[in-house]
Amino acid sequence: MSKLTDAMSEAAAQVEKTMDRLLPKPIDNHSVLFDAMRYSALGGGKRLRPFLVLESSRLFGVAESCALRAAAAVECVHCYSLVHDDLPAMDDDDLRRGRPTTHKRFDEATAILAGDALLTIAFEILSDPDTHADPQVRCNLIAALAKAAGGQGMVGGQMLDMLAENEEFDIGAVTRLQRLKTGELFAFSCMAGAILGRADEPSRHALQAYAHDMGLAFQIADDLLDVEGRPEDLGKAVRKDGGAGKATFVGILGVERAHAQAEMLVEQASQHLEPFGDRAEMLSSVARFVVHRKS
Amino acid sequence: MSKLTDAMSEAAAQVEKTMDRLLPKPIDNHSVLFDAMRYSALGGGKRLRPFLVLESSRLFGVAESCALRAAAAVECVHCYSLVHDDLPAMDDDDLRRGRPTTHKRFDEATAILAGDALLTIAFEILSDPDTHADPQVRCNLIAALAKAAGGQGMVGGQMLDMLAENEEFDIGAVTRLQRLKTGELFAFSCMAGAILGRADEPSRHALQAYAHDMGLAFQIADDLLDVEGRPEDLGKAVRKDGGAGKATFVGILGVERAHAQAEMLVEQASQHLEPFGDRAEMLSSVARFVVHRKS
Repeated sequence: MSKLTDAMSEAAAQVEKTMDRLLPKPIDNHSVLFDAMRYSALGGGKRLRPFLVLESSRLFGVAESCALRAAAAVECVHCYSLVHDDLPAMDDDDLRRGRPTTHKRFDEATAILAGDALLTIAFEILSDPDTHADPQVRCNLIAALAKAAGGQGMVGGQMLDMLAENEEFDIGAVTRLQRLKTGELFAFSCMAGAILGRADEPSRHALQAYAHDMGLAFQIADDLLDVEGRPEDLGKAVRKDGGAGKATFVGILGVERAHAQAEMLVEQASQHLEPFGDRAEMLSSVARFVVHRKS
Repeated sequence: MSKLTDAMSEAAAQVEKTMDRLLPKPIDNHSVLFDAMRYSALGGGKRLRPFLVLESSRLFGVAESCALRAAAAVECVHCYSLVHDDLPAMDDDDLRRGRPTTHKRFDEATAILAGDALLTIAFEILSDPDTHADPQVRCNLIAALAKAAGGQGMVGGQMLDMLAENEEFDIGAVTRLQRLKTGELFAFSCMAGAILGRADEPSRHALQAYAHDMGLAFQIADDLLDVEGRPEDLGKAVRKDGGAGKATFVGILGVERAHAQAEMLVEQASQHLEPFGDRAEMLSSVARFVVHRKS
């Protein structure tokens, strides 16, 4: 798996460079907001979603400079969602990627605003001609990201997650919650390459099916890490979900069946990539990676 | 001025109908987020920014169905900013438009997420072909709204407003703060018509200059209302700014000079509209309206 981790590190470095270039730079002692945006978005994370954008773009011969901008946009959205989810009124987390969360490092107001600004800049990045010469392609990216991230996507999933603290969720409801909360942004990341590369319908369907199974496998693995992982590997607190009454796959399926389900989904995810042959090797590896990671 | 108020009421009703159609509808008892989005965005407000979109669109013969969508988008952004600004970590307000603020009616987590979702849907609305047939025009709208609303626009202004609580701001710094916090979104609202109508450069400049002066006049009037207004007219608490150590025009200029400054800006704003002749009558009236309003 070192070929994959090498490729992921290389991609993460490039995405970091792109984000560093695109995020506003602090200019004076009134630039706290820019500091907080950069603190929240730079210097950490596996950059899994950007990697999916880059690898799906590779399938369709998309120029790397375009793919990197779309990758930076989706990562801005992911980072904004972490900043808001960590707030005291939400999951109330002090630690993220081994560092104080944004509201701990700055304050709550600054964290709320930095999240807002990161979400907004994602759309600014996508609307720029440098992301793709064809404005129709840019509009398609924006529409897809807004749907994936908004009230009927990621934000809707986060809302369900809050509701699940006070309510019994069955396996169907948990699956829907997780599909919205993390699956939709994974799916966007995989579709971004297809949109940028104007891929045909069968290719889009294959990627969508892959993203669906991979996203679910990722979430099950995430739940398992909360139970089995070590905080020093994860850079955040563990065993919070059970205590908070969170609806998780592990809570419903138990540890053993959750492992089996994740393995099955990874297998299935890889099968969806068959039409792409060897070119999808990294996407196939990354699905295995998400369920076997230690952090 | 009844011609103006009639036109504003008519526009507000149409914008309300458009937003009602575009915002997701609650479907089950898990739809709290949609309830909160609708609570935050529907049923109130002067809809001043949408009115500017509609009136600037009229100057260039833009189809009303297109202008209404852009108007709804900018109002979603305005309403999201109110929801987040009212949060306990920010201005900590209990009352807005005479009703409990969103975090009071629901809870903080729901208010944060409803704001996030309203911001996101604004870009979804603009990216849709129904907003304009030409995707380049849609991208121009999205880029302009993201710039006006983001870290280098409205959100940046809100951040400065927070910093101003603990720091002396001079007239230059307050002007910059207000230009960012409210001026940029006013300017976008006026430019939206020009973008949708593919207006020429001189027209864009004229509208930009109008928006600049009108936005500043609006903010001075807002500061004056905080000092002179009645809570029962305003539907929110008054005389908060002084106590919170907020940087306001009235605090720096004093009441009398603030009134004079606002009048001068309104005069100036109207002069910028001269190239448009009678067609800009409403825009000219609305500048007078913003400084003479009681709420």
